[in-house]
Amino acid sequence: MPTDLAVDIERIGEDIPLLEAIRTTRAIRRLKPDPVPRALIRKVCEAGTFAPSGGNRQPWVFVAVTESERRAFIAERYRRVFHEYIAPAVEAAQAPDFPERKRRNIRAAMHLADTLHTVPVHLVVAGWTRRGQQQTQGLFPAIQNILLACRAVGLGASLTTVHTAVQREIDDYLNLSEETPSCALIPIGWPIGKYGTPPRRSVDECLYFERFSPEAN
Amino acid sequence: MPTDLAVDIERIGEDIPLLEAIRTTRAIRRLKPDPVPRALIRKVCEAGTFAPSGGNRQPWVFVAVTESERRAFIAERYRRVFHEYIAPAVEAAQAPDFPERKRRNIRAAMHLADTLHTVPVHLVVAGWTRRGQQQTQGLFPAIQNILLACRAVGLGASLTTVHTAVQREIDDYLNLSEETPSCALIPIGWPIGKYGTPPRRSVDECLYFERFSPEAN
Repeated sequence: MPTDLAVDIERIGEDIPLLEAIRTTRAIRRLKPDPVPRALIRKVCEAGTFAPSGGNRQPWVFVAVTESERRAFIAERYRRVFHEYIAPAVEAAQAPDFPERKRRNIRAAMHLADTLHTVPVHLVVAGWTRRGQQQTQGLFPAIQNILLACRAVGLGASLTTVHTAVQREIDDYLNLSEETPSCALIPIGWPIGKYGTPPRRSVDECLYFERFSPEAN
Repeated sequence: MPTDLAVDIERIGEDIPLLEAIRTTRAIRRLKPDPVPRALIRKVCEAGTFAPSGGNRQPWVFVAVTESERRAFIAERYRRVFHEYIAPAVEAAQAPDFPERKRRNIRAAMHLADTLHTVPVHLVVAGWTRRGQQQTQGLFPAIQNILLACRAVGLGASLTTVHTAVQREIDDYLNLSEETPSCALIPIGWPIGKYGTPPRRSVDECLYFERFSPEAN
């Protein structure tokens, strides 16, 4: 963590241009154990609150877990379901022609699962339900704002929903009721690696004018 | 539309800082009928492609509808369901103590519905299903990137899912099958009004440390 950080939370990250940030916000899953100031967590969550939501209901609830025993509780349960989740990919990655880039991603995801207890912030995003339904569409725009804001202030982050397989157990532990279930986990910390352009298909493979015509692409 | 736009699509919007853009991206529902260059639509959709998605599956499909008879088709159906959707809010807004800010929002949403056929771009966001399910969590981060990119390049935009009440009719018209259903409509054009901070609760009302404790806020 930069030593002058505490004095200047308001200024940090204010200069990076939007489009450059959008193009270089990749998932960062290798993180240092150094703590993150609460004021900085507040700053990235504040960015989340500017997202749109149906009827401007702002259904989000952010729970930043920083205490080590609490992170150990989450990490232990996350690991349990993660290994089941990733097993088919690990199996597929044995094939000699499996893309090396995907293999690296699997390794990074496994590294995150194995070190999750050391990641300084487990940001759990939950949301108020409406008519018994999670308002997913009102939560993921806020999550994206948070991921971009992490990029701006120099934090590494990634988005996972794997924990939902043990959601009730984790939600109970965090006092999240069925009226405010969690929907995503964002492990946040100071990055070991660098930001960079994530691997994506060209927009020209996804954008159509007037009507969808996949055969034309 | 700025007259020098066509010559400089690559440069436009590159300077605005991320966090400033996040804080001032409000829904803009009053839009001019002037056309938007295709290269600019491509630019904002490209921002969408940098969003995260489960397994990096990038499930998004963008259909930019610009032909006037196609926009009229969508607008006619949108209006039909919108008026049913908004009726309870219009009724509630009759109360003398109804917040004026919400009343303005209702008026803006009605203006958008009434003028939708004149809005130059109807960006329909659709997505490849997985195991028969829409991958919503992989679409709304991309949508948020697009809304922010519109802010950066000077376009006005807003997010609506009201059209899903007549989704099958619209999707058929756009050649979107049940494997790639639409999930959102983003009407885009040059703004009549100004960008500005959207009305939101303070982050301190949504952010908790260690565990959810609404009674503490």
